[in-house]
Amino acid sequence: MATKAQRKVSRKKTARRSPASAAQRTARTMTNLSTLAQGVVKSSLAGREPRLEIPTRSAANTRWNKSRRILQMGTSTQERQLFNLGQARRFMQTMLHASSVKDLLEAEKTLSLRAMFYKSLHTISGTQEKTFDEQSESDGILEDLEVALGSLREELHIFAKKAGTMVGNITVIDTGDEINCRKMGSGGYAIPSIVEPDVIQFKDCEADYILHVEKNTVWSRFNEDRFWEKHNCILTEGGGQPPRGVRRMLHRLHNELGLPVYCLLDCDPWGHYIYSVIKQGSISLAFESQRLAIPDARFLGLRSEDYERCELSDDVQIALNQRDITRAKQIMNYPWFKDKRVWQREIRQMLDHGFKMEVESLITKDISYVTAEYVPRRLQERSWID
Amino acid sequence: MATKAQRKVSRKKTARRSPASAAQRTARTMTNLSTLAQGVVKSSLAGREPRLEIPTRSAANTRWNKSRRILQMGTSTQERQLFNLGQARRFMQTMLHASSVKDLLEAEKTLSLRAMFYKSLHTISGTQEKTFDEQSESDGILEDLEVALGSLREELHIFAKKAGTMVGNITVIDTGDEINCRKMGSGGYAIPSIVEPDVIQFKDCEADYILHVEKNTVWSRFNEDRFWEKHNCILTEGGGQPPRGVRRMLHRLHNELGLPVYCLLDCDPWGHYIYSVIKQGSISLAFESQRLAIPDARFLGLRSEDYERCELSDDVQIALNQRDITRAKQIMNYPWFKDKRVWQREIRQMLDHGFKMEVESLITKDISYVTAEYVPRRLQERSWID
Repeated sequence: MATKAQRKVSRKKTARRSPASAAQRTARTMTNLSTLAQGVVKSSLAGREPRLEIPTRSAANTRWNKSRRILQMGTSTQERQLFNLGQARRFMQTMLHASSVKDLLEAEKTLSLRAMFYKSLHTISGTQEKTFDEQSESDGILEDLEVALGSLREELHIFAKKAGTMVGNITVIDTGDEINCRKMGSGGYAIPSIVEPDVIQFKDCEADYILHVEKNTVWSRFNEDRFWEKHNCILTEGGGQPPRGVRRMLHRLHNELGLPVYCLLDCDPWGHYIYSVIKQGSISLAFESQRLAIPDARFLGLRSEDYERCELSDDVQIALNQRDITRAKQIMNYPWFKDKRVWQREIRQMLDHGFKMEVESLITKDISYVTAEYVPRRLQERSWID
Repeated sequence: MATKAQRKVSRKKTARRSPASAAQRTARTMTNLSTLAQGVVKSSLAGREPRLEIPTRSAANTRWNKSRRILQMGTSTQERQLFNLGQARRFMQTMLHASSVKDLLEAEKTLSLRAMFYKSLHTISGTQEKTFDEQSESDGILEDLEVALGSLREELHIFAKKAGTMVGNITVIDTGDEINCRKMGSGGYAIPSIVEPDVIQFKDCEADYILHVEKNTVWSRFNEDRFWEKHNCILTEGGGQPPRGVRRMLHRLHNELGLPVYCLLDCDPWGHYIYSVIKQGSISLAFESQRLAIPDARFLGLRSEDYERCELSDDVQIALNQRDITRAKQIMNYPWFKDKRVWQREIRQMLDHGFKMEVESLITKDISYVTAEYVPRRLQERSWID
């Protein structure tokens, strides 16, 4: 194992500039958009029916890549034809959104998913029909465009509601502003929805690892105790299930700076699922797993055994309901948990206990038990699941 | 009207230090806690039944203070007796939480509402009975304590889930860290849950006003267009209905720095209600109105008349449902809206239209219509409701 000093140097080396600049990436997206549009134009001029080939985003077309340890999209595609009554509407919507994205790229602006819905919304002339009935229709088409163009949503200049904050031993550059995450007070730096390398660059980072917690109230406890300073790390939270921006930020910090990611989540199926998504990706975003999933992410706790290990009282027990039990069994059967004896034992023990527990329940030991005892000891004893 | 330079100076003068230091405020809260506890001890020793007097937090005990233009709590109180079967449990819970708050103040730490629930949670010895059944029970008792002690929740060292971000022409000091809100990139400064003067101080502020928007996606549009820089303001968002931290931040910026607050919210009952709460306070927090409500806050838009004024297409119309209509009529009858012809007209027009509109719908005009046209013109024409 390299010494701390060595690791610092090697990390600084790794924090190289992203290979493709913003201009190059925009140019590539533009080319892909043109290719999409020209295909339609060519077919039309040749008297052939215009059609698009869109990779299929569905559970059936999701594959568990065992060697890469991430969820990936399979090879199935679906056609979208203009002269097919069942497909014409979505064909039109795809072209509309492609055109809106082109506008965004040319204007060098970004829009929210909601705003994109409005941007492409109009009543088709001569009819009472609107181009989109509701935003969910629009969101789906934008995901289709992502996979069809092989571009991240962020590269299409579209952002989502942001959530999640960050503090710790790192300076990031965000749209040219230097943000010293060691000096962010009690509030913290709000992680933006788009954190691609043309927006966010990493500058000085001495941190040894990332501690990611589930909720911002737990994050505040760690920040108030200045955990990140005492233990030389970066502290993040994602407001429950972390949005893409937070996952992408963790992914970049992990891969570009070589920082291990430790997750502190509740001992319940929701906490286990958050870990699963951070680690392996999700079905709905399987096409982005290689840019979002962190197969080496570690689950630090809470563990079912903590009930005995930390000598917790029965007050921390929250009875599992039927939905929890069903969900826990589903998660046990995920291919990446199925082969892992430790995960089988973990979830089995929770089911045997018949209760779940929250990180906040450690408060029953002491106000700062979680920051002063629990996490430091788990790290020292290398007691985590990966 | 003072010149701009004059206003700057006077604002800088106004940005004085808070009258009570953190230590003084903690000492005051401690004294109040002791008084509460000693009252109980004295009664017990004197052989009298221990009882507490708690101001009543209910709609019936909420008064509209017309001259101060804020919602306030009335004078009703309720007794909480130890030897009353219907009150003993809440008496015990109140004393338990009072003791937990004392622990927090002594440890100089803060806890979330959820963690406070756990902190005071235990099984009463010799019984199967828990001190609290669920968090909502605990939250209510904490609000009782606030009113009984006359202390802000923040002064009891209790925080809630945070939401909301800020950028603009101001530097704030947050727990000793200097945060330059002009250099916060695309993410922004996450507004903490506790923004009392011992945590947050204001340093340099050149801003002329605050623009508060409803959603963080709209905020991102304004931030990307660097609206706050071009128009010399502070830009905030509260993630829908702003939490206490954001309301208190707006209140302090408004009162201590003399900054007008302009709200850009959706043209629907939800947007109107957000404005109402920012301006006049809410029933559930009526006891905090004087520290949260901003009677001079202005409603900049969206206005029902914008449908015609901005020549919007019918695509932006979202039909009002029955719940919207009921809610709109309730809001029309709020005492502070009832006497205002312009608000009656505003809501009436929305009802007559039969549709609501979102700020995002302005995107149908142009990507940056809202930042480059809509808001600047409304401000220039002084076209707002207050």
